[in-house]
Amino acid sequence: MSEQQQAPGVPAEDSDAAAKAELEVLRREIDRVDEQLVTLLAGRKRIVERVMRIKLEHEMPTSHPAREENLISTRRAQAAAAGLDPDYIEDLFRTMLRHSRVGQLDTLSRRGVRPGSKVLIVGGQGSMGRFFARWFAQSDYEVRVLDRDDWARVDALVHGIELCLLAVPIDVTTEVAGRISPHLPKGCVLADVTSLKTRPLQAMLQSYSGPVVGLHPLFGPATTTMDRQTVVVSPGREHKACQWLLDQLTVWGNVLVETPAVEHDEIMGIVQALRHFATFAFGQFLHSRRIPIFRTLELSSPIYRLELGMVGRLFAQDPAMYAEIVFATPERQTLLKEYIQSMSQNLDLIDRGDKAEFVARFRKVAEWFGPFSEQAMRESTFLVDKLVQRF
Amino acid sequence: MSEQQQAPGVPAEDSDAAAKAELEVLRREIDRVDEQLVTLLAGRKRIVERVMRIKLEHEMPTSHPAREENLISTRRAQAAAAGLDPDYIEDLFRTMLRHSRVGQLDTLSRRGVRPGSKVLIVGGQGSMGRFFARWFAQSDYEVRVLDRDDWARVDALVHGIELCLLAVPIDVTTEVAGRISPHLPKGCVLADVTSLKTRPLQAMLQSYSGPVVGLHPLFGPATTTMDRQTVVVSPGREHKACQWLLDQLTVWGNVLVETPAVEHDEIMGIVQALRHFATFAFGQFLHSRRIPIFRTLELSSPIYRLELGMVGRLFAQDPAMYAEIVFATPERQTLLKEYIQSMSQNLDLIDRGDKAEFVARFRKVAEWFGPFSEQAMRESTFLVDKLVQRF
Repeated sequence: MSEQQQAPGVPAEDSDAAAKAELEVLRREIDRVDEQLVTLLAGRKRIVERVMRIKLEHEMPTSHPAREENLISTRRAQAAAAGLDPDYIEDLFRTMLRHSRVGQLDTLSRRGVRPGSKVLIVGGQGSMGRFFARWFAQSDYEVRVLDRDDWARVDALVHGIELCLLAVPIDVTTEVAGRISPHLPKGCVLADVTSLKTRPLQAMLQSYSGPVVGLHPLFGPATTTMDRQTVVVSPGREHKACQWLLDQLTVWGNVLVETPAVEHDEIMGIVQALRHFATFAFGQFLHSRRIPIFRTLELSSPIYRLELGMVGRLFAQDPAMYAEIVFATPERQTLLKEYIQSMSQNLDLIDRGDKAEFVARFRKVAEWFGPFSEQAMRESTFLVDKLVQRF
Repeated sequence: MSEQQQAPGVPAEDSDAAAKAELEVLRREIDRVDEQLVTLLAGRKRIVERVMRIKLEHEMPTSHPAREENLISTRRAQAAAAGLDPDYIEDLFRTMLRHSRVGQLDTLSRRGVRPGSKVLIVGGQGSMGRFFARWFAQSDYEVRVLDRDDWARVDALVHGIELCLLAVPIDVTTEVAGRISPHLPKGCVLADVTSLKTRPLQAMLQSYSGPVVGLHPLFGPATTTMDRQTVVVSPGREHKACQWLLDQLTVWGNVLVETPAVEHDEIMGIVQALRHFATFAFGQFLHSRRIPIFRTLELSSPIYRLELGMVGRLFAQDPAMYAEIVFATPERQTLLKEYIQSMSQNLDLIDRGDKAEFVARFRKVAEWFGPFSEQAMRESTFLVDKLVQRF
């Protein structure tokens, strides 16, 4: 700020004009700094790529969590000394490191654990089938596809394959497993990627006598990265012979969680069926009352926006897929009925407007949730901040 | 990579040692780049502070959305030309701009629209009362507090005040409004910050004949910033005389949404009562079935983690506050009963396992949600990415 502008006697207009000129100079300075920032980031990327090339050639581990934490600590200390908020700098560097990690995985994703091996994707025209075909092809596997109209060529397609991956809809998985199994060459791994595990695994084990493993990738075909995505693994038979496939998933960045098929299906009843049904029923009620969605958004806190977003998200997706998930097993149907009944138990409470009883029931649940509530509070507050920032 | 290391005949150990040495050099290069990044960011902050000082002195508007969008476009173009992902660079710059905006608000938040004016916070010992007392004090108001035990001093406390802000629990707001009103000096603004508006506004209008306005801040006392936070404004009487208070909220960064009290309460029935009750009932069911929460998290997609986080978050908070919200009005009790009945209508569907009917009902709701679903999909995908990145 020049002294001239504050001097008494200088007309306000001149002072304002001078201020505007000075602002223009400062804005150009900011632009120059921003340009240097991007130039530095581009340089950083080139160094990281050289690191990756060396690590690949020498088959060294790529991720290095301890080094990341060191790096963050050093930058936090520098930030504090320079009068910057350390949390802010940590936020920026975590974004950079995450981006660099995904970039590394892009490079590594091409690495095949068994490059050149032949892989058959059954249902290879579906969205999950196409997804896996792309990843295997990227990693130098010879990918073949068998879809509905290809059964005449089945023997040519299975010739010499080391993996047969079933990526067909859940309601035909059993049938398809029975149909393909007699054709599979000795030692070939038979695996599926459906969202249930008990029945598909039984079907594969009954119709085929070689190595079998059940997989449930907890992500959709729209995902662009497998970095840190979870895949549930339910062992079937000859687990060692299936190991190379699991190693391949790990190389792609997936986190594998081994879970027996029965436990998997039970938990998925909660994670998928119950949660999706509850969300569906909530959306259904908003619709029946013709609630003005956008008006409620104008008057809502970030958390409500996030919650309503979860509801809207469901209805942007395939109803048939949700029908399959919700009605997958008789156990799930029972679970949903019990959920509705449990909810109805609150009717009398609401009728009486009994706040004391509501508080009592609330406390019992809160006690049970315990440490998870705190974690949830922390995570959701972090996200709300991101939401307010972006939208 | 030096040629030496790839030359045949060089033992693998030597080659590995050379690679490790080279990695060490590259790591130091990365550290140097990172140090320069933080130095640049500190320099950027100093320039922004100079900009702020000039703007403050000349009372120029602080936020400049068009300039922000220009800045982002320029950096995206530079990123693309330099082989960087433009979305990644945009992400970093949005974080920087947000941080700089909050920093500006920290400076500006001290600016009082009516500095020196006397403000009385009734319920000033409660969490929302303390929150507003802090903000008014920061902006150079003379802040006084009246809590339960201060009624003997009421006439001294109200002397010369220009604002009386009711920050008491919703169930005593009517009573407190009636008690304080006879003491208020002429021209003083009477306002409340409770989460209902019809009854509090009626109570204030009946007991007081001066300027009245109802406020509902859609955030809790734990928030550290008012940047872009919504405050619902329900006009009462002499709106012009209340304008300085609304201007003060805007200076603090709040977004004001003017809404008649009746409409506000109706929409909040949905936004708060229905949503919170649905979440409560879901948590209640998980508890009744003793679902292993942490085990389900291991086996869940990021979206489920986010949804369960919303449930856990509720139970980390004050049950009495939720009881007040859920049972606030007879209309809300009716709404909740209808919600439970609407959910029960799906019982027969579940009994029959009727997928076709589920799909039909789903489609009807999806059609109604329309454009909101797409927006929700985009927003929640962005957040899931943030969640996977951080936790």
